[in-house]
Amino acid sequence: MTTTHPQESRTDRVAPSATTPSSTGSIDVASLPSPGIEQQVPEGERIDVGQLGDVLDGRWKDVRRDVRALAANPDLVKVEGLPKEEHRERVLGQLHQLAELGVPTRGFPDYVGGSENPGAYIAGFEELVLLDPSLQIKAGVQWGLFASAIYQLGTREHHEKWLPDALSMKLPGCFAMTEIGHGSNVAGVLTTATYDPESEEFEIDTPVRAAWKEYIGNSALHGLAAVVFAQLITKGVNHGVHAFFVPIREEDGVGGTRWLKGITIEDDGLKGGLNGIDNGRIRFDHVRVPRENLLNRYGSVAPDGTYSSPIDSPGRRFFTMLSTLVQGRVSLSGAAVITAKVGLATAIRYGTERRQFTGADEHQEVVLMDYQRHQRRLLPLLARTYAANFAQAELLDRFDDVFSGRHDTDEDRQDLETQAAAAKVVNTWLALEALQESREACGGAGYIAENRIVGLRQDLDVYVTFEGDNNVLLQLVGKRLITDYGRSMAKIDVAGKARWVAERAADMTLHRTPLRRAAQSIRDTGSMARSAGHLREEDTQRELLEDRVEAMVEEVALALREARRAPAERAAAIFNANQDALIEAARAHAELLQWEAFTAALGRVRDEPTRRVLTRLRDLFGLTLIEKNLAWYLMHGRLSSQRAQAVTSYVNRLLVRLRPHARDLVDAFGLGDDQVRAAIATGAEAARQHEAREYERSQRASGKEPINEKVLHEGQKRAGLART
Amino acid sequence: MTTTHPQESRTDRVAPSATTPSSTGSIDVASLPSPGIEQQVPEGERIDVGQLGDVLDGRWKDVRRDVRALAANPDLVKVEGLPKEEHRERVLGQLHQLAELGVPTRGFPDYVGGSENPGAYIAGFEELVLLDPSLQIKAGVQWGLFASAIYQLGTREHHEKWLPDALSMKLPGCFAMTEIGHGSNVAGVLTTATYDPESEEFEIDTPVRAAWKEYIGNSALHGLAAVVFAQLITKGVNHGVHAFFVPIREEDGVGGTRWLKGITIEDDGLKGGLNGIDNGRIRFDHVRVPRENLLNRYGSVAPDGTYSSPIDSPGRRFFTMLSTLVQGRVSLSGAAVITAKVGLATAIRYGTERRQFTGADEHQEVVLMDYQRHQRRLLPLLARTYAANFAQAELLDRFDDVFSGRHDTDEDRQDLETQAAAAKVVNTWLALEALQESREACGGAGYIAENRIVGLRQDLDVYVTFEGDNNVLLQLVGKRLITDYGRSMAKIDVAGKARWVAERAADMTLHRTPLRRAAQSIRDTGSMARSAGHLREEDTQRELLEDRVEAMVEEVALALREARRAPAERAAAIFNANQDALIEAARAHAELLQWEAFTAALGRVRDEPTRRVLTRLRDLFGLTLIEKNLAWYLMHGRLSSQRAQAVTSYVNRLLVRLRPHARDLVDAFGLGDDQVRAAIATGAEAARQHEAREYERSQRASGKEPINEKVLHEGQKRAGLART
Repeated sequence: MTTTHPQESRTDRVAPSATTPSSTGSIDVASLPSPGIEQQVPEGERIDVGQLGDVLDGRWKDVRRDVRALAANPDLVKVEGLPKEEHRERVLGQLHQLAELGVPTRGFPDYVGGSENPGAYIAGFEELVLLDPSLQIKAGVQWGLFASAIYQLGTREHHEKWLPDALSMKLPGCFAMTEIGHGSNVAGVLTTATYDPESEEFEIDTPVRAAWKEYIGNSALHGLAAVVFAQLITKGVNHGVHAFFVPIREEDGVGGTRWLKGITIEDDGLKGGLNGIDNGRIRFDHVRVPRENLLNRYGSVAPDGTYSSPIDSPGRRFFTMLSTLVQGRVSLSGAAVITAKVGLATAIRYGTERRQFTGADEHQEVVLMDYQRHQRRLLPLLARTYAANFAQAELLDRFDDVFSGRHDTDEDRQDLETQAAAAKVVNTWLALEALQESREACGGAGYIAENRIVGLRQDLDVYVTFEGDNNVLLQLVGKRLITDYGRSMAKIDVAGKARWVAERAADMTLHRTPLRRAAQSIRDTGSMARSAGHLREEDTQRELLEDRVEAMVEEVALALREARRAPAERAAAIFNANQDALIEAARAHAELLQWEAFTAALGRVRDEPTRRVLTRLRDLFGLTLIEKNLAWYLMHGRLSSQRAQAVTSYVNRLLVRLRPHARDLVDAFGLGDDQVRAAIATGAEAARQHEAREYERSQRASGKEPINEKVLHEGQKRAGLART
Repeated sequence: MTTTHPQESRTDRVAPSATTPSSTGSIDVASLPSPGIEQQVPEGERIDVGQLGDVLDGRWKDVRRDVRALAANPDLVKVEGLPKEEHRERVLGQLHQLAELGVPTRGFPDYVGGSENPGAYIAGFEELVLLDPSLQIKAGVQWGLFASAIYQLGTREHHEKWLPDALSMKLPGCFAMTEIGHGSNVAGVLTTATYDPESEEFEIDTPVRAAWKEYIGNSALHGLAAVVFAQLITKGVNHGVHAFFVPIREEDGVGGTRWLKGITIEDDGLKGGLNGIDNGRIRFDHVRVPRENLLNRYGSVAPDGTYSSPIDSPGRRFFTMLSTLVQGRVSLSGAAVITAKVGLATAIRYGTERRQFTGADEHQEVVLMDYQRHQRRLLPLLARTYAANFAQAELLDRFDDVFSGRHDTDEDRQDLETQAAAAKVVNTWLALEALQESREACGGAGYIAENRIVGLRQDLDVYVTFEGDNNVLLQLVGKRLITDYGRSMAKIDVAGKARWVAERAADMTLHRTPLRRAAQSIRDTGSMARSAGHLREEDTQRELLEDRVEAMVEEVALALREARRAPAERAAAIFNANQDALIEAARAHAELLQWEAFTAALGRVRDEPTRRVLTRLRDLFGLTLIEKNLAWYLMHGRLSSQRAQAVTSYVNRLLVRLRPHARDLVDAFGLGDDQVRAAIATGAEAARQHEAREYERSQRASGKEPINEKVLHEGQKRAGLART
């Protein structure tokens, strides 16, 4: 159900006519397709959907498709509107089924029955979101957090003791890190684990209400044990946050469970979504666990209470421990991209069938996707989703490099941490935006639960604040960019630095004066069409996007220089006054990574027409990024006013050229009816439209159709005129 | 729990220091407050919360407060997570209670027991959203649509026959306009009402699946009758869409109801929210109703089938009929503003108590609202909510003027229609944005249903597409702007017009060249501080906002001129190529109305400190609007690069100055714990924080606090250095 416009190739060569105000972004309308007049894409210009699907699914495509196929099993997918209690039990049962299918084993070593293939493990885990986000997150709690913490923070003895049961679901567990009072600030948790050399035990304690472990998945009902993060205190010294294995429930002998001594748990109750997971709050009242329950890969306590660690610096140790848990962010980032695909697949399928208002053809209403506004709403999101897909593939490659041990230095881990944080942020926000725009683009139908978009959006909502709040993560990325900038500065000698600073200052002044702009204006005397050609060039897009990130980082870095030697209060004020700029720089960096990944992926497409369409989609991604930040480019003298106007104009042109391929572009996601599961995305709308049109046609043909009063009036007027 | 910063007044006079790159929008940090160092607002500078509340609640404040007080009755408010079936019955019961309280009578005439006070009626109706959005919308279906259609489209006989029972809830009813195939395009509905002079009946028929009435509230369970919109056909002529009173259910004699002959109803089932309403789909299979059931205020059929109408033009008649239903949009627009208030009240109360990460004070973490980013996220939304409140008050005034009959010409109705469409769009989107940002700003707590934000967002989601899809409504507003522009052009004579067009063309060219910008650059040689002073001026903001709307409308109007004489296909293409620009012009117009209303409201505040703070909030609204469209101002030569940079800089400064008043500004909304009903907005967080700080303080005081390993390391290093 795609359309095309044979005039299309002409738009390339046509400059806007003098009568068309170019500042509205219009282009020569003579070359534009008229809404409601549909044509087919000639066969030779169509996307090779299969090949594009392979490029999208990438390195672990077989694993992805195996997991995706599970959506055909009705027992494994979400039932919308199930009461919370039933939903929780259903998801628990599904976890047992996944365990039987061996889904989690790819993430763990052979001596506990695994096949340790970290990249494949995460790829498969990402796809679980297609079954039910609650299922994915409960699986994430069980295997990605609880079992992973035992594996990554514990030692061989711990692995052999607990992992087989954790993998088989015999031992459901929790990951108790967050506290009510300390969400993002993990280093500040108040739970203590105080070593008692007499009994050779740790005493886990929750001293105040703010220290209750909060939002803990698996805790309200099913968890038998928890990995608990607490301040390790021994011999009067606090060695910082460490992880402990703490049993919390036991079988009560009559088919149920009961809390262990000192444990209190409250149910978090209903949430905005993800109600298949039993989140809760845990309090530890002087709960004692054996010394051996400290997961001691990065810090041990001898029987006499002496602390030792392979990592001297407490800061580096804390970072290393947390960095082992990066897979949570990596997999949520990927899952978010997949849900964006489901939303867009639904809205674009529906948008190519749904009609509203007549256009050029009075007997046939216009398909929604033919409206410029509809294209504007959905196609840039489609381009972002492609970019996110390819950036996620690169992230997963790096994750596999680190966790397979191939490239696992401190620096590799820091890079992975930064890249994962950046991707998690832009992808989870993308998911919410794509789902919301898709929901609105489907109108009332988008609001009906059976069309799934609202349920997905409700479930995905919390992805933007859990596993690292998005704003906090962006700040983390921003700080890393500033540090890197500082390091690159440090490599220049003192004299060089002074010269460099002077040059940059001059350069920045130049950017802010009309001089550079004037220079560009001279180059811009050619037609707008040539400007558009320039914008289409890969190097132009790269330069604009890279330049912005560099300049933003530099501006913040220069502003923060002052803070380094300032007293604490003033330093905090300086940092705060630049917080928003720092976060925006981090976001620009994350988007640049996506653009680069998209561009790199173009080279992996062999089919010529497919690559041509995909290149336009990449251009749409790059240019909508530039358009979003157009004011920055203008103020900083990177784009002349004339060229800036060409951006919107060219974006509008790309929309028209991509429109005929919209359906193929979502089909390449490889999501069938089993995965999308939206009644409106199955052709039902096309069938209704067809029936209605046939009815109207037969009415007209039968001669029984009533005359429209308007037509009657016009006829009477003409008759009146004829008589006079 | 507000803070202030005595240095604040200084920021006015301080130009940015040479070392601070102004392009990041930074200001002299020496004058900035440091996060974590809190101070109180001096008493004389505090907002008069009571007076501001009166200004906000406006003309019908007593009605508003009476309805708001109903939220104290636990029987009348939403219970989160109720199964759909129970929720529907609960809301039905609540409607009966509201009927007993006389809530709907204000909208209807005395001869059916009402007091006909249209403005007060809508003001009260808006506030119902505080009880439960499902309750509001079901009340809207019953009284705002079903009963109102009988009142507005019917005649005295209809009123006396059906309205008393509709008001008392003895006759629950539906408003059956939308069809599956025709959501926004009401003129295109396929349901027919064919007059049969033999029996003197209309036959209502649903010819195809696409013509089923869809998303009809009250239809799945409770409605006994429906006002049905269908093409009126008599004597072989289709007179367009008219409304008919059609019974759909009857009592079955055993306590239930059954469908009447020819009626089929399907339940829409679970939705993304508003699950207290029984939406469904209705099919009419040759259902017969008496001739008198045509609601015939604007069109009658005589027994012999002769059609007559007080309005000759079918187009104008259709518009007039639909315009009587504008109150739906007016009241949803107002309800949306109120939910934005609930979200922001929750997030800002929580944000002034919640702490995360230490700043300047190592023993006390920083309150979220002290972070620049947090201010950036919430305060501009607060400013928009104020603007929306005041614009809504003006809309309601105009509504009251028209519906009280004081100013009720065709033009008044058109103006009201346009203003209502514009307000409905910006306010419903504002509600979703404010609720989402508030949810994220509360982190995990925002996702817990007991804190209400997620539930409100789910319920409000559909407000952006029902009662007129937001994008379709903006297009409607845009078309009206183009028409008005055309009319003002038509008043100029031909010679004048040619001259005017030439001048405008020259003007537009000027805007696009560096000439005008260069001129502004010369004026801009003063300090940045003076630029900020300029931006603070009311006239500057007005000129920038007005100018943009005018220029955008003009650009689209000029582009569309071509379409007027073009063949249909080409005209459709031209229109489509400008659709996005048209819609953006309409949005700019809607935002300008808000700015104007906010500015007008400043004059209603007598208390000097309150007006000062409110003026800053208006500036924040105006400048964030300008900032959002900064690229446009730069490209069109309205702002120099230097002045554009001052916008962000001044916005950041306003955030700092408004921060201490944030709590008072949401308190002025007049929403108490009964209305907000969020556990995190009740001081619980402050109590937890207080307990945690007291615990830490007592630990330090007791000398039992373990030494931090980091401190130990530093101590050892110093000792080692001392030894060498």
